[in-house]
Amino acid sequence: VTKKLLVLPGDGIGPEVMNEVARVVAWMGRARGIVFDISEDLVGGASLAVHGVPIRDEVIVAARAADAVLFGSVGDPKWASVGFDLRPEVAILKLRQELGLFANLRPAKVFDALVEASTLKPEVVAGLDIMIVRESVGGIYFGTPRGIETLPDGTKRGINTEIYTTSEIERVARVAFDLARQRGNRVCSVEKCNVMESGLLWKEVVTALHAREYADVELTHMLADNCAMQLVRNPRQFDVIVTGNLFGDLLSDLASMLTGSLGMLPSATLGAVDAKGKRPALYEPIHGSAPDIAGKGIANPLAQILSFAMLLRYSCAMEADAALIEQAVANVLASGLRTADIMSPGMAQVGTSVMGEAVVRELDKL
Amino acid sequence: VTKKLLVLPGDGIGPEVMNEVARVVAWMGRARGIVFDISEDLVGGASLAVHGVPIRDEVIVAARAADAVLFGSVGDPKWASVGFDLRPEVAILKLRQELGLFANLRPAKVFDALVEASTLKPEVVAGLDIMIVRESVGGIYFGTPRGIETLPDGTKRGINTEIYTTSEIERVARVAFDLARQRGNRVCSVEKCNVMESGLLWKEVVTALHAREYADVELTHMLADNCAMQLVRNPRQFDVIVTGNLFGDLLSDLASMLTGSLGMLPSATLGAVDAKGKRPALYEPIHGSAPDIAGKGIANPLAQILSFAMLLRYSCAMEADAALIEQAVANVLASGLRTADIMSPGMAQVGTSVMGEAVVRELDKL
Ligand SMILES: CC(C)[C@H](C(=O)O)[C@@H](O)C(=O)O
Ligand SMILES: CC(C)[C@H](C(=O)O)[C@@H](O)C(=O)O
Repeated sequence: VTKKLLVLPGDGIGPEVMNEVARVVAWMGRARGIVFDISEDLVGGASLAVHGVPIRDEVIVAARAADAVLFGSVGDPKWASVGFDLRPEVAILKLRQELGLFANLRPAKVFDALVEASTLKPEVVAGLDIMIVRESVGGIYFGTPRGIETLPDGTKRGINTEIYTTSEIERVARVAFDLARQRGNRVCSVEKCNVMESGLLWKEVVTALHAREYADVELTHMLADNCAMQLVRNPRQFDVIVTGNLFGDLLSDLASMLTGSLGMLPSATLGAVDAKGKRPALYEPIHGSAPDIAGKGIANPLAQILSFAMLLRYSCAMEADAALIEQAVANVLASGLRTADIMSPGMAQVGTSVMGEAVVRELDKL
Repeated sequence: VTKKLLVLPGDGIGPEVMNEVARVVAWMGRARGIVFDISEDLVGGASLAVHGVPIRDEVIVAARAADAVLFGSVGDPKWASVGFDLRPEVAILKLRQELGLFANLRPAKVFDALVEASTLKPEVVAGLDIMIVRESVGGIYFGTPRGIETLPDGTKRGINTEIYTTSEIERVARVAFDLARQRGNRVCSVEKCNVMESGLLWKEVVTALHAREYADVELTHMLADNCAMQLVRNPRQFDVIVTGNLFGDLLSDLASMLTGSLGMLPSATLGAVDAKGKRPALYEPIHGSAPDIAGKGIANPLAQILSFAMLLRYSCAMEADAALIEQAVANVLASGLRTADIMSPGMAQVGTSVMGEAVVRELDKL
């Protein structure tokens, strides 16, 4: 059966790097006879410019109907004054919430060929392979009451609410434990239970679930501030980290920057399997829209291409093809090609499309 | 006039490292004829063990009456099940709130002699000198409603509330701008305004205050997740960072770990100057109670000693003495002594008290 994909390039470098995925999709048709039913739409600032909203309801409907969403990135300083409810970021937040994409899987993996691109010493990061499982439809991102109120004296008060329920915590912790069993079998649960009751509940629920169903997995707990430090001090101590939406936002960006190759890292955001066995899923690079380099043709397309490979693996059961693409990316790196973000002495610096073409050339050889 | 100091060693390595400050205090009496009116009390787990509470009201009263508080650290896994309102951390949270200590100044500075102790490459961190100004009596740490409720089906819900008002944001931003004028003249304000309205207000208020009173200072804005990344990618881009309580907790720990010498970093937490010109202030090391190494005599006492030097500078107007102590610490490092946390090849590893004695010996030579 032909898989339905919804492609949402978004803002900044999103469309540029998505163009390179199109080459890989074309290769799959040509070389492997695999064709997708692909539709594409606007989100973020790109949608604001045309439709006046960061995401249209019909895009949400199309996303629900698709087998998977391949997302670029959103966010654009051009729209800084557009108003809180219309900002480009609403596109990804709404997709996560409306599709129930509660588990954001963010690998922080050091590519052997790129150890030197890290600002950390090679002996600290070589071989690093962390999976951060970030809760992505709850916590302070979505809790109410929220907003800005004007006080009697004319000054203002900004409010947001962090809420986590037992079931929200359990379902994301399950994803983390299940993943750990396929990897290093260790989960570190991160919260701030010494200050926040929501963190205290988080810790309690994870602890209880572990005792009930996952006693074979090693579970540790860490405060979020300590985790930020430990990621710098000795990142290889971690296997799977599970944490809430806000801590996950900071810690996963931090972890991915340790690798020195943010432009290489894909991510998946998964929902619950429905009655028909379908699991909503969205794939996007860890990196953002990078407006400072947008339109220059220098962005690294590999994270977007690897996000497509993840999509093949998890949403299309095309493991062999996913592995082929990953191998092609590894071969391109081994051949010495580098975009600016991962450039190092002695390598050949190339732009976005040369990199994309090189991946297809390697695919042709495999 | 004799200055009144309240000394609160707390838990874990707190008492051990505070012992080394006692040597420096004794030296000040002996060599410089400066005597303090010092009282000492229990906080954290140490107070729980004796008094059943993490901090007694009379300790708060004494802290208010003192010219400054010298704090060790609190937190002890022994008390993990003591109940949320009785946990050791309440001691520092109550002190901050009851004394109105709203500006937590956390320097992240690389000591030249210790560049190699960082996990980051020397060329990335040499000369690093960031000052993080963290709001410390507001935000999600103290907002209500908060707590854990049981839902009708028996499962639970944990809630915390992030609140920031115009005046809370302004007063801490002022501290940041004032500090910047004495340093690199640059402030980076950090929030998550693309997701949280409290962050949006934060950005608005800082922007308006800047335009009104601090237009001579360079102001930039950064999202908290990006800041976590940028601290790893290129930490020297920052001069002063100003941010809320929770982001400040993570980002300042991250920043201080970049230096590789967390055990060297002091901090100050300041309140508002009152009608009599007195400013409540608390000084404490950046590092925590480190229960894993407590009682072993191997903790680094230098952050606690440098916290005392900061106290002399900011609460006692004893700049010369503060500088002497800092010079003594620098000389000890130059002489090659290292505690375990900052040890590197070719240096001499020593314990807590040998390090403290060495500082006094250097003071005697100055
Ligand atoms: C774009 C933004 C709303 C988003 C977030 O904060 O979740 C991004 O930073 C991410 O991590 O995917
Ligand atoms: C001990 C704890 C409550 C405290 C905090 O989170 O503020 C500590 O981590 C700090 O940063 O001073």
